[in-house]
Amino acid sequence: MSSKITGILTPHMVPLDADGQINEAELRRYVDWLIERGVHGLYPNGSTGEFIRFTPAERRRIVKVVCEQAAGRVPVLAGAAEANARETLAACEAYAGFGARAVAIVSPFYYRLSPESVYAYFREIALNSPIDVTLYNIPLFASPIDVPTIRRLAELERIVGIKDSSGDLAFMMRMISAIRPYRPEFSFLTGWEAVLVPMLMIGADGGTHATSGVVPELTRQMYDLTRKKQLDDAMRLQYRLLELFDAMLYSADFPEGFRAAVELRGFEMGHSRQPLSPTQQVDRENLQRVLRCLLSDFGYVEAPPEGCPPRASALEPVRVNKIADDVIRELRKQGLV
Amino acid sequence: MSSKITGILTPHMVPLDADGQINEAELRRYVDWLIERGVHGLYPNGSTGEFIRFTPAERRRIVKVVCEQAAGRVPVLAGAAEANARETLAACEAYAGFGARAVAIVSPFYYRLSPESVYAYFREIALNSPIDVTLYNIPLFASPIDVPTIRRLAELERIVGIKDSSGDLAFMMRMISAIRPYRPEFSFLTGWEAVLVPMLMIGADGGTHATSGVVPELTRQMYDLTRKKQLDDAMRLQYRLLELFDAMLYSADFPEGFRAAVELRGFEMGHSRQPLSPTQQVDRENLQRVLRCLLSDFGYVEAPPEGCPPRASALEPVRVNKIADDVIRELRKQGLV
Amino acid sequence: MSSKITGILTPHMVPLDADGQINEAELRRYVDWLIERGVHGLYPNGSTGEFIRFTPAERRRIVKVVCEQAAGRVPVLAGAAEANARETLAACEAYAGFGARAVAIVSPFYYRLSPESVYAYFREIALNSPIDVTLYNIPLFASPIDVPTIRRLAELERIVGIKDSSGDLAFMMRMISAIRPYRPEFSFLTGWEAVLVPMLMIGADGGTHATSGVVPELTRQMYDLTRKKQLDDAMRLQYRLLELFDAMLYSADFPEGFRAAVELRGFEMGHSRQPLSPTQQVDRENLQRVLRCLLSDFGYVEAPPEGCPPRASALEPVRVNKIADDVIRELRKQGLV
Amino acid sequence: MSSKITGILTPHMVPLDADGQINEAELRRYVDWLIERGVHGLYPNGSTGEFIRFTPAERRRIVKVVCEQAAGRVPVLAGAAEANARETLAACEAYAGFGARAVAIVSPFYYRLSPESVYAYFREIALNSPIDVTLYNIPLFASPIDVPTIRRLAELERIVGIKDSSGDLAFMMRMISAIRPYRPEFSFLTGWEAVLVPMLMIGADGGTHATSGVVPELTRQMYDLTRKKQLDDAMRLQYRLLELFDAMLYSADFPEGFRAAVELRGFEMGHSRQPLSPTQQVDRENLQRVLRCLLSDFGYVEAPPEGCPPRASALEPVRVNKIADDVIRELRKQGLV
Repeated sequence: MSSKITGILTPHMVPLDADGQINEAELRRYVDWLIERGVHGLYPNGSTGEFIRFTPAERRRIVKVVCEQAAGRVPVLAGAAEANARETLAACEAYAGFGARAVAIVSPFYYRLSPESVYAYFREIALNSPIDVTLYNIPLFASPIDVPTIRRLAELERIVGIKDSSGDLAFMMRMISAIRPYRPEFSFLTGWEAVLVPMLMIGADGGTHATSGVVPELTRQMYDLTRKKQLDDAMRLQYRLLELFDAMLYSADFPEGFRAAVELRGFEMGHSRQPLSPTQQVDRENLQRVLRCLLSDFGYVEAPPEGCPPRASALEPVRVNKIADDVIRELRKQGLV
Repeated sequence: MSSKITGILTPHMVPLDADGQINEAELRRYVDWLIERGVHGLYPNGSTGEFIRFTPAERRRIVKVVCEQAAGRVPVLAGAAEANARETLAACEAYAGFGARAVAIVSPFYYRLSPESVYAYFREIALNSPIDVTLYNIPLFASPIDVPTIRRLAELERIVGIKDSSGDLAFMMRMISAIRPYRPEFSFLTGWEAVLVPMLMIGADGGTHATSGVVPELTRQMYDLTRKKQLDDAMRLQYRLLELFDAMLYSADFPEGFRAAVELRGFEMGHSRQPLSPTQQVDRENLQRVLRCLLSDFGYVEAPPEGCPPRASALEPVRVNKIADDVIRELRKQGLV
Repeated sequence: MSSKITGILTPHMVPLDADGQINEAELRRYVDWLIERGVHGLYPNGSTGEFIRFTPAERRRIVKVVCEQAAGRVPVLAGAAEANARETLAACEAYAGFGARAVAIVSPFYYRLSPESVYAYFREIALNSPIDVTLYNIPLFASPIDVPTIRRLAELERIVGIKDSSGDLAFMMRMISAIRPYRPEFSFLTGWEAVLVPMLMIGADGGTHATSGVVPELTRQMYDLTRKKQLDDAMRLQYRLLELFDAMLYSADFPEGFRAAVELRGFEMGHSRQPLSPTQQVDRENLQRVLRCLLSDFGYVEAPPEGCPPRASALEPVRVNKIADDVIRELRKQGLV
Repeated sequence: MSSKITGILTPHMVPLDADGQINEAELRRYVDWLIERGVHGLYPNGSTGEFIRFTPAERRRIVKVVCEQAAGRVPVLAGAAEANARETLAACEAYAGFGARAVAIVSPFYYRLSPESVYAYFREIALNSPIDVTLYNIPLFASPIDVPTIRRLAELERIVGIKDSSGDLAFMMRMISAIRPYRPEFSFLTGWEAVLVPMLMIGADGGTHATSGVVPELTRQMYDLTRKKQLDDAMRLQYRLLELFDAMLYSADFPEGFRAAVELRGFEMGHSRQPLSPTQQVDRENLQRVLRCLLSDFGYVEAPPEGCPPRASALEPVRVNKIADDVIRELRKQGLV
């Protein structure tokens, strides 16, 4: 039997080259860098990895490259959602062949399905998958998976865990209460790093979150401190992570803020497949200035030559800039400038 | 210059064969049937057509078959959304080649994007598409397109219309106010047939809605009556359509109720790619009994041999059944039955 | 038996004096003015009338004054919601004594109650009220009243109508379908004037909406045109009303934009009981400039001496101003200005 | 200067007599009981206390009785929201006279106000109140108070704390980050006991939550354990509290489940002012059977003579019952039973 999935598994981004194609060399370099900085696992084709903006063939290639490059050093949890259950199962087959530890499958999206449909979908997959399956609940983007449905699904052996990105601690506790007593090896992972430490404290087994792709040292440290019950130290880092997280999450459409941040760590991410308007490009540059300061506070990057503003208001210039952009755009539309 | 897109364009479903593959013969027969019953156009790869449950290659094939079979009798508005702008543009290219009148592109989904990102996405497509583009706003499933964004996008010549599935009349009026004065040929289509007649009355140019794939005669009649200003007659039909629409929409996860209905018109739809649980299959059969009665009232199908209940409560048995199913399922979970 | 409630019933505002108390003389003048301009009824203590910002004693006084001043010229539909069913019934008693035609009772608010609780609450009132009751459904602010609940409540004789402020035409049609066949005298009123004409067209009996307190001539005219089946003319006015409505609704917190507008018609409204910040006061003045232009287009007020901008962009300066306010406020918070 | 508000402050319920009036003797007995079981303070006129279902005069009387009975043993945080700022200030005046430690004022409700209006409202109160003010943020029921608004309001000396019932840990952390550095005595209280221990762990100063009115010993124990850093023990209780909380919260319309529970502790609560339907009364009795079992597990009450079902499924019968009720009601509506 395979071991329980625990720790920090990074839903990593995918670098693109000048032509907008997967930059395989940079992706391999990024995988090495993440493993060296202590992540417990890799999670290609997550929301952070923009799985939906790649073709089926590209998604397969991404998993193949990551599995190869990880080379058994850490487990790979491969996002396998495709157009329908049959296609998803074909991906499961492929990822099992690449050596992934398990697949992660997001609840059906676009349509908002009922719990009964969510159940039927995952059941079909669980009964036919050659590889362990973790559920992925992200109610903001996909059909929600409620506690009774999770409980029914946990009766299927192939389903070995759930990643929940709701950030709701009580929901996590309800899931754990409902399942852990009879499936102690079932893995509960949080996708909402804003509350990683409290989630671990209430019993979550780990996290799979975008921030770990930017500051893997930090999230690893938070995980280790919490496991060692040094909660005060862990919480101090949690507060600092929250500031960084909010900056990356709310200053641009997800996951562009995270892409902007990882560039500061030395990776060439290329242009996103979601086009940016000229206004958004300016916002992105402003955001990077702020992120550089936040990251330099941790010692992860050099501070900018011009120095950084006092902490509390670090983010404000970006917001003011965004507002100013709005004014200009509005005025331009009116033909006033 | 191409003419304005008007009338009822059917976002048709796709019949599947016993193996779950596209049933091309049945699809062609269905296309003929729709055209013969008066639809003004066809709309493959819409939400009703479950575009997201097909592979990119299948989506292309569907459009190809439909264009071939329509053979110029009615225009084809082809859903062209793919994984990213580049892939979408490749589909636009292909659909132009197949002879589609225009493409319809749903706003980016899964992620909820800001208006600026929605704008940047459609702008990229509009500037590069070889074929006219209609926007598709369905805020329930995809990033909303707000009025200022629509107004900005309407400045791009390639964008020739919008399909809006919000069902909000005031929103439709705001769009029309903002754009019609300077682009009179811009097409406004409603995707919410529950209010088709009022929408036409306030100035919409037509509708693209699932129900027209089930009762094309009815929606065509409603359209014609409204155009002839026979509003009382049109509204009588609107009330009857609403009852049918609600039954199809709320008694099963969309669009399964519509698939169940079109089978009664004589088409083999096959099993949906979204698996149904045993409970859902029973619900579907019950729903079909109700739908048969509703459709027989219109004279579209034979009444069932056992007769139909009085109108007002036609749908109630289905609902009671669903509740009873819930009870049973709940009890079963508790090990009580 | 009392006659069906139909037409435009105005949920009027309440003028306040320099001390913030009810300005009775101005209220009486306003009532006369509304009746003279053709409203079919008056509706004190509605949402527009800020019932929640008055004390129970003040609410009674408002109804008393309005009933006295209406003096039987038009029916009064008195908002009677109080802290609980018993207090509400005491208000019903009082308003019956004042000569109100019926009371309107909003669904329980603050808590979001289940349909069963909503039913129990209205049932308690209906069984004990000495005066006819209309339900008031405003899901944005209060517990929603769904169609099955309305249907159950319509079995109680005292309940004679419903005002619905959802603006959802299909919902209105569902209510009418469910109730009109067996209670033809039950009254369906829309509270969403953005779609007044379409609502009347699908069978609503009238409207009770804030805009009729600002431009009673206009809403009366729309009602009469629709009844006379001059729909094209009615819709032309509907489009113009929408522009005015949006300006009043979205440029300030409800109902302050309507208070700002009615001042232009010559009434002293006094300061709202909801305090305005300095920023909001400036916004209000800017809004009044825009409203003056919109109202002067109808001929209801004089155009401002400095003239009006071209129609399409009339509202934009207000919006730009609001954005500019935001910038300034943001900068001020940062200590940058 | 007054000391910081910390610990568990109980938003207690109000017992009613056979005539539906405040049962003062029982209220006094309840106050004593709560204080004896270790609550750090009392919070009359909260959401749990159904403030909105009492008249202004009754609300005053409730605070008066509670202040008298507390008699300085614990501080009283008195809910003071009235119809408008002026009435609220009059209540503040009165409650200061009764000896309350501070008032708690819920954000304006019914209307959904903008941040600027929320700010203006609280500013008006803070500048004129003779007593310290805590803000009450409960976005489910009232206009939300966002972080920038809280930050602006925290500049007013009279505002000394905030109770937040969102249950969102990241939101709590953002508030603490924004305010604590320059106002260390500002009090952060959570109203979402489902996550009381994690909230205390991340830095909240205490909680004001309904459950402490039912099991004050338990919540006090959780508070003390957390303060003593015995987090494992605290979390074990948190999990058990969650089960109880969910039963009280989700099996009836709030706060009826809590009223049903406190009756089991020996208090006569009387009939709620929100009427219960016959169905709801049966549900309430079933719920009490379940609650008796949950409370007996803690040793707070005797187990029922017939014994209790195994833990995991304790709540299920209630849910099944509710579903069965639905079936019956539905069938009855159809005239089938």
